Amino acid sequence: MNNTDMSHFLAELADTIESRLPARGGNPETSYIAKLYHKGEDSFLKKIGEEATELVMACKDAKHDRIVAEAADLWFHSMVALAYYGLRPEQVINELARREGVSGLVEKASRKE
Amino acid sequence: MNNTDMSHFLAELADTIESRLPARGGNPETSYIAKLYHKGEDSFLKKIGEEATELVMACKDAKHDRIVAEAADLWFHSMVALAYYGLRPEQVINELARREGVSGLVEKASRKE
Amino acid sequence: MNNTDMSHFLAELADTIESRLPARGGNPETSYIAKLYHKGEDSFLKKIGEEATELVMACKDAKHDRIVAEAADLWFHSMVALAYYGLRPEQVINELARREGVSGLVEKASRKE
Amino acid sequence: MNNTDMSHFLAELADTIESRLPARGGNPETSYIAKLYHKGEDSFLKKIGEEATELVMACKDAKHDRIVAEAADLWFHSMVALAYYGLRPEQVINELARREGVSGLVEKASRKE
Repeated sequence: MNNTDMSHFLAELADTIESRLPARGGNPETSYIAKLYHKGEDSFLKKIGEEATELVMACKDAKHDRIVAEAADLWFHSMVALAYYGLRPEQVINELARREGVSGLVEKASRKE
Repeated sequence: MNNTDMSHFLAELADTIESRLPARGGNPETSYIAKLYHKGEDSFLKKIGEEATELVMACKDAKHDRIVAEAADLWFHSMVALAYYGLRPEQVINELARREGVSGLVEKASRKE
Repeated sequence: MNNTDMSHFLAELADTIESRLPARGGNPETSYIAKLYHKGEDSFLKKIGEEATELVMACKDAKHDRIVAEAADLWFHSMVALAYYGLRPEQVINELARREGVSGLVEKASRKE
Repeated sequence: MNNTDMSHFLAELADTIESRLPARGGNPETSYIAKLYHKGEDSFLKKIGEEATELVMACKDAKHDRIVAEAADLWFHSMVALAYYGLRPEQVINELARREGVSGLVEKASRKE
């Protein structure tokens, strides 16, 4: 997956997650995300704590496949939480960019092309 | 920031983090990331647990600005961990895409354009 | 339960947990603790992260019954971990006492009687 | 420390923590606990997440001294939270006892003496 596809994917994943919200008709019988929303916020917030711990353990074991899988779990459940509160991963990445001083980085990126 | 810039930013941020690794000459006197690496893996793994808890608390308070800020902290320190083990955020996103069945999503994305 | 029974109970609970260790013949078919030990350390360490998050959420909700229940879950799984590494809750309490300066506190306690 | 002293200590520690509550005149200038209370609940709840992660890491490293120290940190900050919500460690231990079926255990304990 190149950069452009990767970026599309994050936005698409957020769209998919949002479509599972109760207000959007997400069906807890057929969708894992809709089931979490149906159970209430503690159900997916608990997963954030659990997956963070699993990521830490995978790192302590230095098992690369598990590190990637647990980071994916952690980011995924973060995105489930974001969607619940009407927020987007783009806002998280913008916040990271703001901290790093995005203008310089974007300029540097465009010079590379 | 549009999708393409957002995607460049994530890759750039990973590059920046990697440049702070001890083997790459990261200076713990001048860089927060290099300081974490210098202290050892527990220093940044602990932050993953801490930031996950802070994200959960921000969600319980439904404070949108803090949710975005804590998610940014959590993703950032996850990326610090990934770089330490020679891994990239692209691999995490690929893992998420693999689970969702990326071909359909990318196809759908390209049809949008 | 008075103080003396409470104290006996903690020591008894640690004994019970230890009796579920694989080396002591704990049966994963009939005992929850033995099942955790059988699955390996990540299974109960993950619970520590999960129960800590649940305690934090119960506190944010200020729901007293749930706070007590989640603290019990957290302490219980801490004791499961302690036993796995050949450690006792008495050592944890001694460490707390050492930090507080136990002599003064015990003296104060005995003066009360 | 024998069982009776250990039990007195837990009750004494809870008393000490309670004396640091703002309503009891705890001074954030001179007391760590009073400082946490002064900063608000997120300050000590965050510590629960952080210390849980540190306990998990100490366990992964199988470093016995650190496991005891981190468990002490985790139980201590749990007790800081309990006191903030007007709860006692005795209630947590009663809950553990209730689950285990305390009558049998206490009976067994008394037979030992």
